[in-house]
Amino acid sequence: MDPLFELDITVSDSRTRTLVEIFSQAIKVAIQEKRLVDGYKMPSSREFSRIKKVSRNTIIAVYDELCVTGYLETITGKGTFVKTQKQSQIVINKTQQKSRLATYWNNLNNDDILPKQTMRTYDFSVGIPNTAQFPFDVWRRVVNKATRLQYLNHTKAAPQQGLVDLRQGIVNHLSYSRAISSSFEHVCITSGAQQALDLICKLLITPKQTKVAMESPGYPMAKHLFKMHRAKIIYVDVDEQGMCIDQIPNDVALIYTTPSHQFPTGVAMSLERRRQLLHLANKHNISIIEDDYDSEFRLSSTPIDALKSLDTSQNVFYVGTFSKCMFPDIRLGFCVLPPWAIEAFCNAKLLTDWHNSVLLQTALFLFISEGHLIKHIRKMRKCYQERYQAICQQINLHCAEYLTPTNVFSGVHLSVKVVEHINAFTLANTLQEQGITVSSITHFENDINAQNSLVLGYGNITVEEIKSAVRLIEKTLKSMNKTIGILDSNKSPHQ
Amino acid sequence: MDPLFELDITVSDSRTRTLVEIFSQAIKVAIQEKRLVDGYKMPSSREFSRIKKVSRNTIIAVYDELCVTGYLETITGKGTFVKTQKQSQIVINKTQQKSRLATYWNNLNNDDILPKQTMRTYDFSVGIPNTAQFPFDVWRRVVNKATRLQYLNHTKAAPQQGLVDLRQGIVNHLSYSRAISSSFEHVCITSGAQQALDLICKLLITPKQTKVAMESPGYPMAKHLFKMHRAKIIYVDVDEQGMCIDQIPNDVALIYTTPSHQFPTGVAMSLERRRQLLHLANKHNISIIEDDYDSEFRLSSTPIDALKSLDTSQNVFYVGTFSKCMFPDIRLGFCVLPPWAIEAFCNAKLLTDWHNSVLLQTALFLFISEGHLIKHIRKMRKCYQERYQAICQQINLHCAEYLTPTNVFSGVHLSVKVVEHINAFTLANTLQEQGITVSSITHFENDINAQNSLVLGYGNITVEEIKSAVRLIEKTLKSMNKTIGILDSNKSPHQ
Repeated sequence: MDPLFELDITVSDSRTRTLVEIFSQAIKVAIQEKRLVDGYKMPSSREFSRIKKVSRNTIIAVYDELCVTGYLETITGKGTFVKTQKQSQIVINKTQQKSRLATYWNNLNNDDILPKQTMRTYDFSVGIPNTAQFPFDVWRRVVNKATRLQYLNHTKAAPQQGLVDLRQGIVNHLSYSRAISSSFEHVCITSGAQQALDLICKLLITPKQTKVAMESPGYPMAKHLFKMHRAKIIYVDVDEQGMCIDQIPNDVALIYTTPSHQFPTGVAMSLERRRQLLHLANKHNISIIEDDYDSEFRLSSTPIDALKSLDTSQNVFYVGTFSKCMFPDIRLGFCVLPPWAIEAFCNAKLLTDWHNSVLLQTALFLFISEGHLIKHIRKMRKCYQERYQAICQQINLHCAEYLTPTNVFSGVHLSVKVVEHINAFTLANTLQEQGITVSSITHFENDINAQNSLVLGYGNITVEEIKSAVRLIEKTLKSMNKTIGILDSNKSPHQ
Repeated sequence: MDPLFELDITVSDSRTRTLVEIFSQAIKVAIQEKRLVDGYKMPSSREFSRIKKVSRNTIIAVYDELCVTGYLETITGKGTFVKTQKQSQIVINKTQQKSRLATYWNNLNNDDILPKQTMRTYDFSVGIPNTAQFPFDVWRRVVNKATRLQYLNHTKAAPQQGLVDLRQGIVNHLSYSRAISSSFEHVCITSGAQQALDLICKLLITPKQTKVAMESPGYPMAKHLFKMHRAKIIYVDVDEQGMCIDQIPNDVALIYTTPSHQFPTGVAMSLERRRQLLHLANKHNISIIEDDYDSEFRLSSTPIDALKSLDTSQNVFYVGTFSKCMFPDIRLGFCVLPPWAIEAFCNAKLLTDWHNSVLLQTALFLFISEGHLIKHIRKMRKCYQERYQAICQQINLHCAEYLTPTNVFSGVHLSVKVVEHINAFTLANTLQEQGITVSSITHFENDINAQNSLVLGYGNITVEEIKSAVRLIEKTLKSMNKTIGILDSNKSPHQ
């Protein structure tokens, strides 16, 4: 809409001032006040005179005057534009102002939070699902249906906890996909899993006091969130059975874990460890966050129970998301809450952002209830199984000397152990130069003790691409191995 | 989708077990594991036998066995259902678990945050815009268009700061609607104004240390947010010129204010106070949150500059929302940031919920760029002007003896002073019983010094309804006045 329409040009005092004066003044003020921005294209004099019902000659005279006084400029063949106005620069001490930020922010480097993943020819990015096969046509239909319902319900207040229908849909979905028995009263809709974590932090963390245990290597977005909330983080090792529960001190208030598909190693927590974890929580009054971000994609035939299914003492906050099983932009997730935390969690949601878009919640509900979610999950499960198997097969076929894939129970990425004498971090960076997007564990957790492993996501790479990419990896490994061999033989005489 | 399809019923070991045994066992386990929930309707034996490719008699025998063992029940004429399973009850100390919550939550009563507003015949609810006249047909069209673009862009990463196009659209909109000169680089999209406030708190509040000044009476959702972040709140009086700046101590780090349309009194901050506030901030290194929630609806002809327009020293966080000028479920707002806070704010957004739905952002961008927003605002401005004038006129006509409306500069509610001997809180509660949804200032701020005023929103009430409602208010006032008169004359002899 044209900002000129917004200008109040009052012609009532035209007895003492000419029309040209009145119009020039009004436009000048509008430019000074930035109502008309730099570079804004003015209407043609003909159009302007028609809109404002004055003669065209008046407007031509107005434009002339404003060009002379430097407010407008005419570019031949293009039109008349608002000229860029020089602003008086004020000297401000930005460093001093920056010191107003709470400590965490002043020590944070933008790159600290997540490694940059640039999409290259072969994309093993982590955390990206296969959206190429998502039924966007169906999604468009349910969104359209939801906008119709939105009109009918526009006066209804939205509950902060989320739409009951959607929550019931999630309960049903969890009951058969993850064997979690719950009720819609225990579920709260959130803006993805990340917001669920933020709200739990708001509930349970007393700054500089509360101890939180998490896996190391672990999910960086959780780690930074705990740091932002000023928790004391206790890092716990991960082995082939998952989180090493016996390393967790008794005085932590909260344990964050990704048991189905540990981030980033991909291992599943053994049943023994799960029992041990729940026992510990129950004994020492500890809350657990179970982040089950991509467990829908079971790759093996044996299901592993969720901690939530095994939890009989209401210590587990089960966090799930639709970003992975649908597409990231859905921005909807949920938390299945222990009963004692429901009221506080919903109030935290209210104070944080009221509630999620009912439009999107309705669309998601329709998508689930019409059976599209389970259909898509089943399709993706098959797709990810094929890709996972292709990676393992190709690596065993071509790179067995250097690389060992780990078994994963579910999900959209795996970690691959790199032979000791080749540094996985260097390898990943070299592969990136070769056109392969890939990370090492060190990209997620800068820890000297971190496993020497690559992390390969397979959401955005086809089986054919996997084959070509592994050949390229093989070539790179051989070349690196040679260089290291030369370096080693060069080095030895000097040692 | 039918959870039965999900059941792995492996018939391969059928040499040692009968088919009936295998199927019964699989369904039994599914019920125990809650994969099949209580009350779930089983498919007919005919359908089931077709799906699983076994004889119908087998399924009939399976159902019979499971009915006998108490897992299923057949209701004549309705079908076969999963029987409600008794669960072993575990004794859990909910009180002890509740004590895990951070202090703020244990002291919070659910009703503390916002007064309940039940919609009655005449609705003077505060904070609700006129959505009856919102062009939902246009909205549906732009959402539909946005879903098509979503498909095309599904692999693109979304910036946490928000879509550039939308941010540019907001900059243009602010430039002519609020004379704020800005750049899209300074704007971050948020989930409504509330999330912008939460993110600013995350940036600037060090728990138990940072002092925040806010108006009293003030916006309860901001007050509770500051409490949740454990700020020390300094309450500052509001008079007919707005926030009393000289009451603000020099050592606050943050000042929260609603200058265009003070919440809930509705007064606009005078230019002198605005200058005084900015001077104070500049002198003592204080940040300001300008919550400009419904300033688009200018009711008088004289525009008042935003603090942000006058701020030459980059102290102001300008917070805006589309909940009021469009409809609450849009769940999109924004913050215009001082340059020193941009990076931290965007990182806080990332850690809180990654980014807002690109689908909704695109739809909003289309809505703004096609000119629908400014068109709707202009229509609503006229509508609210009429309603505001109707309230003032009707009150002056019928209730002048008891009520005095305050002047408001913009927005969708006003406050009305009640004559001293009638308590506004009691009056509001009495009116609610009469079918009028209305609050008093005390409903928002339980302060003994609070103005004796009603707060009337006019987003959801027509001019005709206003006329009838004011007649009812007149009747109630006269009756209350009489009762008080009788009480007074009753009292006097005993005193």
